[in-house]
Amino acid sequence: MYNFTNDYNETAHPELLKVFCETANQKLTGYGFDEYCNNAKENIRKQLKSPNADIHFMPGGTITNLTVISHILKPYQAVIAADSGHVNVHETGAIEATGHKVLTATTTDGKLTPELIKPILTFHSDEHMVQPKLVYISNTTELGTIYTQQELKKLYQFCQKNDLYLYLDGARLAMALAAQENNITFPDLAKYTDVFYIGGTKVGAFAGETVIFNNTKLNKDFRFSMKQKGAILAKSWIVAVQMNALMQNNLYLTLGQHSNHMANKLKMIFEKAKLTFLAKPQSNQLFVNFPNKLAKKIQDHYVVDCLGQTDSQHTCLRFCTSWATKEEEINSFAKQFQKWL
Amino acid sequence: MYNFTNDYNETAHPELLKVFCETANQKLTGYGFDEYCNNAKENIRKQLKSPNADIHFMPGGTITNLTVISHILKPYQAVIAADSGHVNVHETGAIEATGHKVLTATTTDGKLTPELIKPILTFHSDEHMVQPKLVYISNTTELGTIYTQQELKKLYQFCQKNDLYLYLDGARLAMALAAQENNITFPDLAKYTDVFYIGGTKVGAFAGETVIFNNTKLNKDFRFSMKQKGAILAKSWIVAVQMNALMQNNLYLTLGQHSNHMANKLKMIFEKAKLTFLAKPQSNQLFVNFPNKLAKKIQDHYVVDCLGQTDSQHTCLRFCTSWATKEEEINSFAKQFQKWL
Amino acid sequence: MYNFTNDYNETAHPELLKVFCETANQKLTGYGFDEYCNNAKENIRKQLKSPNADIHFMPGGTITNLTVISHILKPYQAVIAADSGHVNVHETGAIEATGHKVLTATTTDGKLTPELIKPILTFHSDEHMVQPKLVYISNTTELGTIYTQQELKKLYQFCQKNDLYLYLDGARLAMALAAQENNITFPDLAKYTDVFYIGGTKVGAFAGETVIFNNTKLNKDFRFSMKQKGAILAKSWIVAVQMNALMQNNLYLTLGQHSNHMANKLKMIFEKAKLTFLAKPQSNQLFVNFPNKLAKKIQDHYVVDCLGQTDSQHTCLRFCTSWATKEEEINSFAKQFQKWL
Amino acid sequence: MYNFTNDYNETAHPELLKVFCETANQKLTGYGFDEYCNNAKENIRKQLKSPNADIHFMPGGTITNLTVISHILKPYQAVIAADSGHVNVHETGAIEATGHKVLTATTTDGKLTPELIKPILTFHSDEHMVQPKLVYISNTTELGTIYTQQELKKLYQFCQKNDLYLYLDGARLAMALAAQENNITFPDLAKYTDVFYIGGTKVGAFAGETVIFNNTKLNKDFRFSMKQKGAILAKSWIVAVQMNALMQNNLYLTLGQHSNHMANKLKMIFEKAKLTFLAKPQSNQLFVNFPNKLAKKIQDHYVVDCLGQTDSQHTCLRFCTSWATKEEEINSFAKQFQKWL
Repeated sequence: MYNFTNDYNETAHPELLKVFCETANQKLTGYGFDEYCNNAKENIRKQLKSPNADIHFMPGGTITNLTVISHILKPYQAVIAADSGHVNVHETGAIEATGHKVLTATTTDGKLTPELIKPILTFHSDEHMVQPKLVYISNTTELGTIYTQQELKKLYQFCQKNDLYLYLDGARLAMALAAQENNITFPDLAKYTDVFYIGGTKVGAFAGETVIFNNTKLNKDFRFSMKQKGAILAKSWIVAVQMNALMQNNLYLTLGQHSNHMANKLKMIFEKAKLTFLAKPQSNQLFVNFPNKLAKKIQDHYVVDCLGQTDSQHTCLRFCTSWATKEEEINSFAKQFQKWL
Repeated sequence: MYNFTNDYNETAHPELLKVFCETANQKLTGYGFDEYCNNAKENIRKQLKSPNADIHFMPGGTITNLTVISHILKPYQAVIAADSGHVNVHETGAIEATGHKVLTATTTDGKLTPELIKPILTFHSDEHMVQPKLVYISNTTELGTIYTQQELKKLYQFCQKNDLYLYLDGARLAMALAAQENNITFPDLAKYTDVFYIGGTKVGAFAGETVIFNNTKLNKDFRFSMKQKGAILAKSWIVAVQMNALMQNNLYLTLGQHSNHMANKLKMIFEKAKLTFLAKPQSNQLFVNFPNKLAKKIQDHYVVDCLGQTDSQHTCLRFCTSWATKEEEINSFAKQFQKWL
Repeated sequence: MYNFTNDYNETAHPELLKVFCETANQKLTGYGFDEYCNNAKENIRKQLKSPNADIHFMPGGTITNLTVISHILKPYQAVIAADSGHVNVHETGAIEATGHKVLTATTTDGKLTPELIKPILTFHSDEHMVQPKLVYISNTTELGTIYTQQELKKLYQFCQKNDLYLYLDGARLAMALAAQENNITFPDLAKYTDVFYIGGTKVGAFAGETVIFNNTKLNKDFRFSMKQKGAILAKSWIVAVQMNALMQNNLYLTLGQHSNHMANKLKMIFEKAKLTFLAKPQSNQLFVNFPNKLAKKIQDHYVVDCLGQTDSQHTCLRFCTSWATKEEEINSFAKQFQKWL
Repeated sequence: MYNFTNDYNETAHPELLKVFCETANQKLTGYGFDEYCNNAKENIRKQLKSPNADIHFMPGGTITNLTVISHILKPYQAVIAADSGHVNVHETGAIEATGHKVLTATTTDGKLTPELIKPILTFHSDEHMVQPKLVYISNTTELGTIYTQQELKKLYQFCQKNDLYLYLDGARLAMALAAQENNITFPDLAKYTDVFYIGGTKVGAFAGETVIFNNTKLNKDFRFSMKQKGAILAKSWIVAVQMNALMQNNLYLTLGQHSNHMANKLKMIFEKAKLTFLAKPQSNQLFVNFPNKLAKKIQDHYVVDCLGQTDSQHTCLRFCTSWATKEEEINSFAKQFQKWL
């Protein structure tokens, strides 16, 4: 039964496995102080055109989010997120477990805007309520949509003006930056966020995400927070070499592009069938409203996430493609799908 | 400038001051083991008709909520509350600071129902999300509404069936039980909640709330949690004697009734003026929608809470009366108000 | 059975009850913004000769410690305390519950010195260990000893030099400042600590401690932390009026002096009997090593804390006197004690 | 400069790299539900002769300790550890960050015994102190010593009797079980601990530790805690395949044995030079007291951990060998060392 559930079902891209295996038979300094880590950081700084960026290698996405956010905030400060935000829904209260409330704005596309944040700031007026302080966004969002450079810049300027920090979760950053409609560059991320992370696990790495502090007022003693949360890998180079390889020869964006391309093929199939989408299809995740019966048939033959019924007649299924999705798998699905229509 | 903002603007009811002063010139055991505490507990148990209720005296409402909830829940378990719930809005993230997420249901009247809770349970299906475990309600609610006995019982039975705990915040319990439309008794609270507290501060005490564990599977080692959160007063009897006095001769309900009665007089004034209410007026808090200009005038002459505009033409003001509100204060307001109409 | 266990067994000193009752029959602003609070703050600032001191009224000692410390520290920072320190032993892990480790130095007299702190700083060298940041001392200490002005100043200067904060727990500050050997003044506390609190509960108040931030880089948004921990009393004036009365006419020190004086009488009785002390008797707590049999007799007739055996022949008992201890109670004990020798 | 600082300086043992690479080019279920994980669990259960053991794959040691401990304890419960215990010293307060105090016993060999624990239990008598609940031990200990089966069994029985849980940190379990003086088996670990973990990172894995719950009253909802702390790897099989390989053909113990064997060669060199050890050399870590000058020379030519001076004449250096240490490296050191004597 073919699997369209997510983009982390394969161990790693061959190039990443290769560079990883090349680290064997060496004696390396532990905890992130080896040459592989240093090189990877240098290369990332170049990509970002940000020579002072402070860079750290982390084992996974949830631990990255909770370590960064709890490091930055005072105990009574809160996160602002879209209601669909990963930290709000799918991290088992990881942020709250470090003591911080997640305030949410209702969105249809998973994206935050100054207009959505303003009422939250206005409402939280005194010490009987938490103090909103960090804006959490993801790109691509949990609904597969992307931010434009203009939107990101506007949001960042709004944050600056309102004494808020802007943190971008880049679990699927490759798909965002490789999206057809994207106009954000790596240097933009360095300019228009305080902190962000470049996701590896969903873009061909077997594990590992890379945190970048652009705002170097926020990163003091960050390694203390990392160690306390269990986020410093003894052999940090296992993440660094993968990230380094992803930064070479545009591999990161190439993998993102392939993921998007495969999703786009699915999108065209669904559009042809006059189906609608829960959110605008812009990257490697599609949220498609199927007539209930059709949804049932698909689920009987394919592994996909089901988001439940969107109305009495329709069921929303998520299709997620990856760097490893093959064109023939899409074609095979297309053939099957035609028969069910 | 007369103050209708809240019900905790006076030190204490004379009867409570009297019994409090009678504790002077004695040598008493500390930390809640004195005779005043024992007597008060005994009397409360009688009122509740619940000989095994486990009772504790606390300094205030927020510390009561955070101590009880963090004592009961496992780290990954969450609270379910109305979006207007005090723990969600007005305790500066106290629950999150102990590590727990507060999940919310949108309500118009501040009251939770099985129907509002069900989708939350359905949605939280696996370990990537928090586990909903404790239902938090307040009676009266933050919008001044009350639960009926049937509603409370239904909610409790739903909780039982779904392996949830039901906790009732009784900061304004006196006003709830003394409301005209109320049919809940003290023994009902012992039967239809797992834990609740009887509020003192808003009902004539100078400080102090009383926690009652009906579900004696939940209270093991509760004094450890109390001490850790700073909730054991060395001189706990200062709360106990007040609570004991409130339980004598129906004083608690009498004070609640007076608070409601004064609010009811205001309500009639506003109804006569054809004004509408944000939530059904049932106790000592009224949320009244005034034409903007009238709201402005009232605010110039009276201290009241402003909840902002409900539409472009209207501003919502909260009037809150107390055991100490005098009929002539209402009459004086009425006279003034007539002139503005 | 007469009780020498502690100094918080009486409701309140008559003068404090008097000023407290005078607050009745008034309508006051809640949450610490009333005139009583303002006046008390003004008077305390005068006593401290510190016009910018930031002052807050708290319900009790443990909640004061945990609120102040968790407000000041970053998640990976730790407290340094004497092993006998109240935050280390007798607050049920309240500091750890807010996320911070308490590092301890072994002392014989309950007092910290730069020499005791230095090895802790040296040992904690990198991000695999917590970062020592706040030095917690109590005056009087948990062993009844006191700091001299020279010791406090030296400790503060050491902290300044090593980028540490100095916090003084003044639960029994009255006894410290009123001790015969004391040469610390209120203005010294403003000069030589970053934060401290003036204890009320053990000096004649029915509840309430007063926090003073001398270092106004640390108090930003402190009321958010207070509210979150449940430390803002709706009727904060109940603490303020008591504290204000204690600051008038030297009452605070007079009560401390009486407590010490009563302990000193006991001390002379024990010295006459050639008994030794666990720590130098300097205030209202005596830790006396009794031959086991004598200890047993005392415990049969008096309520005192037992600290266990100090060697196979001796048992250590704590005698604690208060502002309310009467000279005849000491005399009565003396008479009884003579018979047992 | 050759490196004797630790046992995690190489990426991975060739066999582990091999099985890891074999997972490429497959589509696997995420979050630990794939066949590699299932097989590894089955094989571990066989090794333990414990068909009901509940097994989880974790990214590293600190996150394992904090996730297990915070899952098991109530907020006011504390850990008991040797003062040298990893959770006490080298995890940046990770346990305290989850809210729990670590109580310590002073040891000379890093090992806990009932005799060391008893006074802690006696001392913690009421709700003003934390409640000791979980005993944390490591095998090998942080000083390189090991537990015998008799010691482990006695400790476990003591825990059972005193309502304590026993948790064993097995970061270097391979070295413990492969030690010459060891008589503990895998099935013993299943019988005489409540929870333990089998370390991978220090025994040839590039990352990953494996938690085993023997006491299946403690593991309910453990995956919720894992997710919340960021401990569920999307591609959990990357740990599972390594652990599975380590369990095949005795590889785990073979690697431990080699590590110990290399250390033993060093030990003989040092003994011949009449040097003393801080703790009995039993595994792959040696803590050697060198005359200061000699210590200086060694540090100039080799990378080793320095624990500081043990007296004015001596400096303690730690030598740590691994599965990858080569005999010629020992011989080369021996030759150099002879010249310095």
